[in-house]
Amino acid sequence: MGVEKFGPVRVGLLGIGTVGGGTFEVLWRNRQEITRRAGRRIEITQVADRDVDHARRIVADRARVLDDAAAVVADPAIDIVVELIGGTGVALKLVLAAIEAGKHVVTANKALLAMHGNEIFAAASRRGVMVAFEAAVAGGIPIIKALREGLSANRIESIAGIINGTTNFILSEMRDKGLAFDAVLAEAQRLGYAEADPTFDIEGVDAAHKATILAALAFGIPVQFDKCYVEGISTLQSTDIKFAEQLGYRIKLLAITRRRERGEGPHGIELRVHPTLIPARRLIANVEGAMNAVWVKGDAVGETMYYGKGAGAEPTASAVVADLIDVARVLTADPENRVPHLAFQAESISDLPILPMDDVETAYYLRMRVADEPGVLADLARILADGEISIDALLQREPGAGEDQTDIVLLTHVTFERRVNQAIARIEALPTVLSKVVRIRLEELA
Amino acid sequence: MGVEKFGPVRVGLLGIGTVGGGTFEVLWRNRQEITRRAGRRIEITQVADRDVDHARRIVADRARVLDDAAAVVADPAIDIVVELIGGTGVALKLVLAAIEAGKHVVTANKALLAMHGNEIFAAASRRGVMVAFEAAVAGGIPIIKALREGLSANRIESIAGIINGTTNFILSEMRDKGLAFDAVLAEAQRLGYAEADPTFDIEGVDAAHKATILAALAFGIPVQFDKCYVEGISTLQSTDIKFAEQLGYRIKLLAITRRRERGEGPHGIELRVHPTLIPARRLIANVEGAMNAVWVKGDAVGETMYYGKGAGAEPTASAVVADLIDVARVLTADPENRVPHLAFQAESISDLPILPMDDVETAYYLRMRVADEPGVLADLARILADGEISIDALLQREPGAGEDQTDIVLLTHVTFERRVNQAIARIEALPTVLSKVVRIRLEELA
Repeated sequence: MGVEKFGPVRVGLLGIGTVGGGTFEVLWRNRQEITRRAGRRIEITQVADRDVDHARRIVADRARVLDDAAAVVADPAIDIVVELIGGTGVALKLVLAAIEAGKHVVTANKALLAMHGNEIFAAASRRGVMVAFEAAVAGGIPIIKALREGLSANRIESIAGIINGTTNFILSEMRDKGLAFDAVLAEAQRLGYAEADPTFDIEGVDAAHKATILAALAFGIPVQFDKCYVEGISTLQSTDIKFAEQLGYRIKLLAITRRRERGEGPHGIELRVHPTLIPARRLIANVEGAMNAVWVKGDAVGETMYYGKGAGAEPTASAVVADLIDVARVLTADPENRVPHLAFQAESISDLPILPMDDVETAYYLRMRVADEPGVLADLARILADGEISIDALLQREPGAGEDQTDIVLLTHVTFERRVNQAIARIEALPTVLSKVVRIRLEELA
Repeated sequence: MGVEKFGPVRVGLLGIGTVGGGTFEVLWRNRQEITRRAGRRIEITQVADRDVDHARRIVADRARVLDDAAAVVADPAIDIVVELIGGTGVALKLVLAAIEAGKHVVTANKALLAMHGNEIFAAASRRGVMVAFEAAVAGGIPIIKALREGLSANRIESIAGIINGTTNFILSEMRDKGLAFDAVLAEAQRLGYAEADPTFDIEGVDAAHKATILAALAFGIPVQFDKCYVEGISTLQSTDIKFAEQLGYRIKLLAITRRRERGEGPHGIELRVHPTLIPARRLIANVEGAMNAVWVKGDAVGETMYYGKGAGAEPTASAVVADLIDVARVLTADPENRVPHLAFQAESISDLPILPMDDVETAYYLRMRVADEPGVLADLARILADGEISIDALLQREPGAGEDQTDIVLLTHVTFERRVNQAIARIEALPTVLSKVVRIRLEELA
């Protein structure tokens, strides 16, 4: 082809499961389109998988299939290694071995980068190779590229993302059908939207891996997964989804990271994943089903949002292959003048701390069961006032005939989490408060 | 600063109006953040503007101010020229002169690129310089980068964009307040959302410039502004916005470009800007006010959407400065191995034709005033059946007491525009049809 200015780039694929298979197929199906873009062929010449028979069925005679990933990594005929094995065991060893062997690496492994990214990127910088990971966050949505390059003029202020499709599907179904969490989870598993062991998704761990990566890119800090606050959706009740709706809000599992360098309280970065009330009229509140969306606010650009499929074979492959094309282009660039792995030059990574949850500032939805007696509201109001927490809205259900209990739902203005925790302890100690206080955080995203 | 691996990049800014002023300020305000990202300083060292006094008030002593843009372009001390003059006269001359002088160019000028892009990009390729233009489409939203790089693994199928804030603001207001076009336009002018001469915006020309650029990037075709079908919103009536709403749709001015290489009819690219009904439940239907959004469908990634401010000093500056950072990084790359201007290698640009409107396939909203007589519907149904146009929905207003006329609103399934035009001619010839047929295109965006 006349468009090929350079020789083909030879890729070794480690792991040909769902995403690996998608990557192989997309790169093959669109090879002409991709060569027209990249100016050179990008070919998967070797595929390593423990299940060699399965790999052969997909690959046929289009690449060499072997069961030894380490051999692919070590082969001088390979320019780029694509790691799609997952996990943080053998994947870490192979990625580090590939880097040491002077190969560029493309990976979709968010757990690996959230937990070992600093070590991996440092090794890559020493060896002058790229580690590309667009597929690690929000599948096919080019959010890593948007943060590292598209918004590079901005001081990023805040990110809020729906970056786990399983939980967004479950929350959408709970709201639409008024069903309980357990029933919807079972349905999601039946439909393939949730894994047999859904813990990582429903407890927010997957979203936290991705949030950790986004925070590093946005603020120029190291990846610090252990500092990310994580709360999943498994204890969320339909009641609260309904009350939120009455108040004009929807509940989403949001990954939030935000710079705080003004106002009272210590300065630093908020990094947290938890169910969150957001105004129903916000675009991101209308992201339904298994779709993902990331809302980013920068000082120059203002609000932006990126929407698409966050998982699945081909959407994820879209990002893996885009990384391959990027790396192929970068092969002829000065290694010192590439886009830095974590968006900022390694020498200028900031030590701005990640704030403990006590110091986080947000608004709150509080629900409690109370005795239908005079004075209950006065007690609540006094406790909140003592804690310097102001009330934004209050909803009190009329007790049914013969009932001597009712629900109170409160929305607070933005305050410190520490204050709310202290207030909740005092509220729960009131004799007229008959339940634990349900506490869900609330963000206006304005 | 320890992060500076290369010397500063010296930029000449041509035109310091709204966007130029924003660019100067963003680059100055975020200079530390930008140096941390780019690894080198990026400095506007010269500013040319016909209004030297105005320029001096903004720039103060932070750059040299002169009134001779040609001198900046010719100065060997300048690495990158930023063209923010606008228009296709002097801007074209200066951009070509900058390229000939071996400077990289950053521009926000969509009219220039839509009309002279082929010449400009060819000259740039000959001289081995970059012409970057993220700010030319959808302001601060990094949609050019998403198409050229983020989605580079995909065969792009379809794009639909709200890429003119003025018209989206007007349409949002017409719907919200039930006001007529003229009233809302006057209000938009008062608020600064519309220019004193709003023709380019309201007649769809601005959106067509941008659509032309998006089509080239998506499909690897030359820019062909003269082939873009353009229909604005100035004749749109509130009545139709209301009927659309009753049927579950919203009307937006969409820029649409789509690949058609299957099915009956000639193959090629659709490229068109016109008011469009879209289902109210689609995320893009809920993009309100002056915001922009671009929906892109690729064969691997599926649906994606990009949302943000499409205009304004700092959102546009966000894109201009991101381009400056990109160009600064590319300075050390092999010119042959850069991201191509129009996403595809110049040698592999396709000659897939842009289809004439007659060959476009879409669905339609048709409204007409009819005599309240038996047989009207039968006549309509026969004409549509003769044209092989099938009806998806029909709304007939009950005539008021004493009225002998009423409105019929029809939605058709997808068909060829030629067939609908022929059917409309026949419908308008019916004695029972008392008005011209109002015809608005409809896209499901599914």
